[in-house]
Amino acid sequence: MEFESIAKQFVDHYYNTFDTNRGALAGLYRENSMMTFQSDKKLGAATIAQKLAELPFQKVKHEIRSFESQPTPNDGIIILVAGALLVDEEQNPLNYAQTFQLVKDPTGAWFLFNDIFTLLV
Amino acid sequence: MEFESIAKQFVDHYYNTFDTNRGALAGLYRENSMMTFQSDKKLGAATIAQKLAELPFQKVKHEIRSFESQPTPNDGIIILVAGALLVDEEQNPLNYAQTFQLVKDPTGAWFLFNDIFTLLV
Repeated sequence: MEFESIAKQFVDHYYNTFDTNRGALAGLYRENSMMTFQSDKKLGAATIAQKLAELPFQKVKHEIRSFESQPTPNDGIIILVAGALLVDEEQNPLNYAQTFQLVKDPTGAWFLFNDIFTLLV
Repeated sequence: MEFESIAKQFVDHYYNTFDTNRGALAGLYRENSMMTFQSDKKLGAATIAQKLAELPFQKVKHEIRSFESQPTPNDGIIILVAGALLVDEEQNPLNYAQTFQLVKDPTGAWFLFNDIFTLLV
Protein backbone atom coordinates (compact mmCIF):
# COMPACT_ATOMS: atom_id res chain seq x y z
CA MET A 1 0.00 0.00 0.00
CA GLU A 2 1.34 3.42 -0.91
CA PHE A 3 0.73 4.96 2.53
CA GLU A 4 2.84 2.25 4.15
CA SER A 5 5.77 2.93 1.90
CA ILE A 6 5.48 6.69 2.52
CA ALA A 7 5.27 6.03 6.28
CA LYS A 8 8.36 3.81 6.19
CA GLN A 9 10.35 6.39 4.22
CA PHE A 10 9.22 9.15 6.55
CA VAL A 11 10.13 7.25 9.74
CA ASP A 12 13.60 6.37 8.42
CA HIS A 13 14.15 9.96 7.30
CA TYR A 14 12.85 11.51 10.53
CA TYR A 15 15.05 9.49 12.90
CA ASN A 16 18.13 9.60 10.66
CA THR A 17 17.80 13.38 10.52
CA PHE A 18 17.15 13.59 14.28
CA ASP A 19 20.30 11.59 14.99
CA THR A 20 22.63 13.30 12.51
CA ASN A 21 21.34 16.83 11.80
CA ARG A 22 18.59 17.70 14.28
CA GLY A 23 18.20 21.29 13.02
CA ALA A 24 17.02 20.04 9.63
CA LEU A 25 13.87 18.59 11.23
CA ALA A 26 12.38 22.11 11.15
CA GLY A 27 11.61 21.61 7.45
CA LEU A 28 9.14 18.83 8.33
CA TYR A 29 6.82 21.23 10.21
CA ARG A 30 4.61 24.15 9.15
CA GLU A 31 3.04 27.10 10.97
CA ASN A 32 0.07 25.00 12.13
CA SER A 33 2.10 21.96 13.19
CA MET A 34 1.88 20.75 16.78
CA MET A 35 4.45 18.91 18.84
CA THR A 36 3.91 17.49 22.32
CA PHE A 37 7.19 16.40 23.86
CA GLN A 38 6.80 14.87 27.30
CA SER A 39 3.66 17.01 27.99
CA ASP A 40 5.35 20.20 26.71
CA LYS A 41 3.16 21.52 23.88
CA LYS A 42 4.55 23.58 21.00
CA LEU A 43 2.80 25.16 18.00
CA GLY A 44 4.48 26.10 14.71
CA ALA A 45 7.70 25.14 12.94
CA ALA A 46 9.87 27.83 14.54
CA THR A 47 8.76 27.07 18.09
CA ILE A 48 9.13 23.34 17.50
CA ALA A 49 12.61 23.77 16.00
CA GLN A 50 13.66 25.78 19.04
CA LYS A 51 12.38 23.07 21.38
CA LEU A 52 14.25 20.39 19.43
CA ALA A 53 17.46 22.46 19.54
CA GLU A 54 17.15 22.87 23.33
CA LEU A 55 16.76 19.17 24.15
CA PRO A 56 19.34 18.42 26.84
CA PHE A 57 21.58 16.00 24.96
CA GLN A 58 24.12 16.25 22.17
CA LYS A 59 24.48 12.73 20.83
CA VAL A 60 21.34 10.70 20.24
CA LYS A 61 20.58 7.44 18.47
CA HIS A 62 17.03 6.17 17.91
CA GLU A 63 16.34 2.48 17.43
CA ILE A 64 12.91 1.71 15.95
CA ARG A 65 11.40 -1.46 17.41
CA SER A 66 8.01 -1.36 15.71
CA PHE A 67 5.94 0.96 13.62
CA GLU A 68 2.48 0.83 12.11
CA SER A 69 0.58 3.24 9.87
CA GLN A 70 -2.97 3.87 8.64
CA PRO A 71 -4.53 6.41 6.25
CA THR A 72 -6.54 9.23 7.88
CA PRO A 73 -9.73 11.05 6.77
CA ASN A 74 -7.79 14.02 5.40
CA ASP A 75 -5.68 11.91 2.99
CA GLY A 76 -3.05 11.95 5.70
CA ILE A 77 -1.15 9.12 7.36
CA ILE A 78 -1.08 8.30 11.08
CA ILE A 79 1.98 6.47 12.40
CA LEU A 80 2.73 4.85 15.76
CA VAL A 81 6.38 4.12 16.53
CA ALA A 82 7.77 2.26 19.52
CA GLY A 83 11.50 2.46 20.00
CA ALA A 84 14.46 3.13 22.22
CA LEU A 85 16.93 5.97 22.31
CA LEU A 86 20.47 6.22 23.54
CA VAL A 87 21.62 9.69 24.56
CA ASP A 88 25.17 10.95 25.11
CA GLU A 89 27.25 8.48 27.15
CA GLU A 90 24.24 6.82 28.77
CA GLN A 91 24.43 3.01 28.50
CA ASN A 92 20.77 2.24 29.14
CA PRO A 93 18.34 2.91 26.31
CA LEU A 94 15.19 4.93 27.09
CA ASN A 95 12.02 3.42 25.68
CA TYR A 96 9.60 5.74 23.93
CA ALA A 97 6.41 5.85 21.90
CA GLN A 98 5.74 8.49 19.28
CA THR A 99 2.77 9.15 17.07
CA PHE A 100 2.76 11.32 13.94
CA GLN A 101 0.18 12.55 11.49
CA LEU A 102 1.58 13.39 8.08
CA VAL A 103 -0.55 15.56 5.77
CA LYS A 104 0.16 17.33 2.48
CA ASP A 105 0.64 21.08 2.23
CA PRO A 106 -0.91 23.05 -0.71
CA THR A 107 2.20 22.33 -2.82
CA GLY A 108 1.74 18.58 -2.31
CA ALA A 109 4.69 18.21 0.08
CA TRP A 110 4.20 16.01 3.15
CA PHE A 111 4.60 17.66 6.53
CA LEU A 112 3.97 16.80 10.16
CA PHE A 113 0.68 18.19 11.42
CA ASN A 114 0.78 16.16 14.66
CA ASP A 115 3.77 14.87 16.64
CA ILE A 116 3.44 13.41 20.15
CA PHE A 117 6.48 11.93 21.92
CA THR A 118 6.34 10.11 25.26
CA LEU A 119 9.09 8.40 27.22
CA LEU A 120 7.91 5.11 28.72
CA VAL A 121 8.70 4.64 32.37
CA MET B 1 -9.04 23.08 25.97
CA GLU B 2 -12.17 21.29 24.84
CA PHE B 3 -10.32 18.62 22.80
CA GLU B 4 -8.35 17.62 25.89
CA SER B 5 -11.48 17.11 27.94
CA ILE B 6 -13.07 15.06 25.13
CA ALA B 7 -9.89 13.00 24.84
CA LYS B 8 -9.82 12.36 28.59
CA GLN B 9 -13.47 11.28 28.65
CA PHE B 10 -12.93 9.06 25.63
CA VAL B 11 -9.84 7.33 27.04
CA ASP B 12 -11.57 6.64 30.36
CA HIS B 13 -14.67 5.34 28.57
CA TYR B 14 -12.72 3.21 26.10
CA TYR B 15 -10.65 1.33 28.67
CA ASN B 16 -13.47 0.98 31.19
CA THR B 17 -15.62 -0.52 28.45
CA PHE B 18 -12.77 -2.75 27.25
CA ASP B 19 -12.26 -4.08 30.78
CA THR B 20 -15.90 -4.59 31.73
CA ASN B 21 -17.97 -5.06 28.55
CA ARG B 22 -15.66 -5.55 25.57
CA GLY B 23 -18.50 -6.19 23.10
CA ALA B 24 -19.81 -2.65 23.59
CA LEU B 25 -16.64 -1.23 22.00
CA ALA B 26 -18.18 -1.99 18.58
CA GLY B 27 -20.30 1.15 18.93
CA LEU B 28 -17.18 3.31 18.84
CA TYR B 29 -16.31 2.24 15.27
CA ARG B 30 -17.95 2.82 11.85
CA GLU B 31 -17.73 1.09 8.46
CA ASN B 32 -14.60 3.05 7.51
CA SER B 33 -12.80 2.62 10.86
CA MET B 34 -9.41 0.95 10.94
CA MET B 35 -7.79 -1.01 13.74
CA THR B 36 -4.23 -2.35 13.74
CA PHE B 37 -3.69 -4.75 16.63
CA GLN B 38 -0.14 -6.06 16.82
CA SER B 39 0.28 -5.77 13.02
CA ASP B 40 -3.11 -7.39 12.32
CA LYS B 41 -5.12 -4.89 10.27
CA LYS B 42 -8.93 -4.75 10.38
CA LEU B 43 -11.38 -2.51 8.50
CA GLY B 44 -14.95 -1.74 9.59
CA ALA B 45 -16.88 -1.95 12.86
CA ALA B 46 -18.07 -5.56 12.42
CA THR B 47 -14.61 -6.91 11.57
CA ILE B 48 -13.04 -4.94 14.42
CA ALA B 49 -15.67 -6.14 16.90
CA GLN B 50 -14.99 -9.73 15.88
CA LYS B 51 -11.25 -9.26 16.36
CA LEU B 52 -11.84 -7.76 19.82
CA ALA B 53 -14.12 -10.66 20.77
CA GLU B 54 -11.48 -13.19 19.70
CA LEU B 55 -8.60 -11.76 21.74
CA PRO B 56 -7.17 -14.67 23.70
CA PHE B 57 -7.98 -13.55 27.23
CA GLN B 58 -11.10 -13.26 29.36
CA LYS B 59 -10.19 -10.90 32.17
CA VAL B 60 -8.30 -7.74 31.32
CA LYS B 61 -7.44 -4.57 33.20
CA HIS B 62 -5.80 -1.55 31.55
CA GLU B 63 -3.77 0.91 33.56
CA ILE B 64 -3.15 4.22 31.81
CA ARG B 65 0.28 5.64 32.58
CA SER B 66 0.24 8.68 30.31
CA PHE B 67 -1.86 10.15 27.58
CA GLU B 68 -1.60 13.21 25.35
CA SER B 69 -3.91 14.64 22.72
CA GLN B 70 -3.88 17.19 19.89
CA PRO B 71 -6.49 18.48 17.44
CA THR B 72 -6.18 17.20 13.85
CA PRO B 73 -6.87 18.88 10.46
CA ASN B 74 -10.29 17.25 10.12
CA ASP B 75 -11.61 18.66 13.42
CA GLY B 76 -10.63 15.34 14.92
CA ILE B 77 -8.48 14.49 17.93
CA ILE B 78 -5.32 12.38 17.93
CA ILE B 79 -4.44 10.61 21.19
CA LEU B 80 -1.34 8.71 22.31
CA VAL B 81 -1.72 6.45 25.36
CA ALA B 82 1.04 4.55 27.15
CA GLY B 83 -0.12 1.98 29.66
CA ALA B 84 0.03 -1.51 31.04
CA LEU B 85 -2.46 -4.34 30.94
CA LEU B 86 -2.99 -7.32 33.15
CA VAL B 87 -4.65 -10.30 31.53
CA ASP B 88 -6.30 -13.31 33.18
CA GLU B 89 -4.17 -14.66 36.04
CA GLU B 90 -0.91 -13.23 34.71
CA GLN B 91 1.01 -11.34 37.42
CA ASN B 92 3.28 -9.30 35.16
CA PRO B 93 1.73 -6.34 33.36
CA LEU B 94 2.30 -6.02 29.61
CA ASN B 95 3.30 -2.54 28.52
CA TYR B 96 1.58 -1.10 25.48
CA ALA B 97 1.22 2.03 23.40
CA GLN B 98 -1.96 2.91 21.54
CA THR B 99 -2.88 5.78 19.27
CA PHE B 100 -6.40 6.82 18.32
CA GLN B 101 -7.93 9.34 15.99
CA LEU B 102 -11.43 10.42 16.98
CA VAL B 103 -13.57 12.14 14.33
CA LYS B 104 -17.25 13.09 14.19
CA ASP B 105 -19.76 11.19 12.08
CA PRO B 106 -22.47 13.11 10.10
CA THR B 107 -24.75 13.07 13.18
CA GLY B 108 -22.04 14.76 15.27
CA ALA B 109 -21.18 11.65 17.29
CA TRP B 110 -17.50 10.94 17.91
CA PHE B 111 -16.12 7.67 16.58
CA LEU B 112 -12.74 6.03 16.13
CA PHE B 113 -11.42 6.42 12.61
CA ASN B 114 -7.91 5.17 13.52
CA ASP B 115 -6.83 2.76 16.27
CA ILE B 116 -3.30 1.31 16.46
CA PHE B 117 -2.29 -0.91 19.39
CA THR B 118 1.25 -2.18 19.99
CA LEU B 119 2.65 -4.24 22.84
CA LEU B 120 6.06 -3.01 23.93
CA VAL B 121 8.75 -5.63 24.23
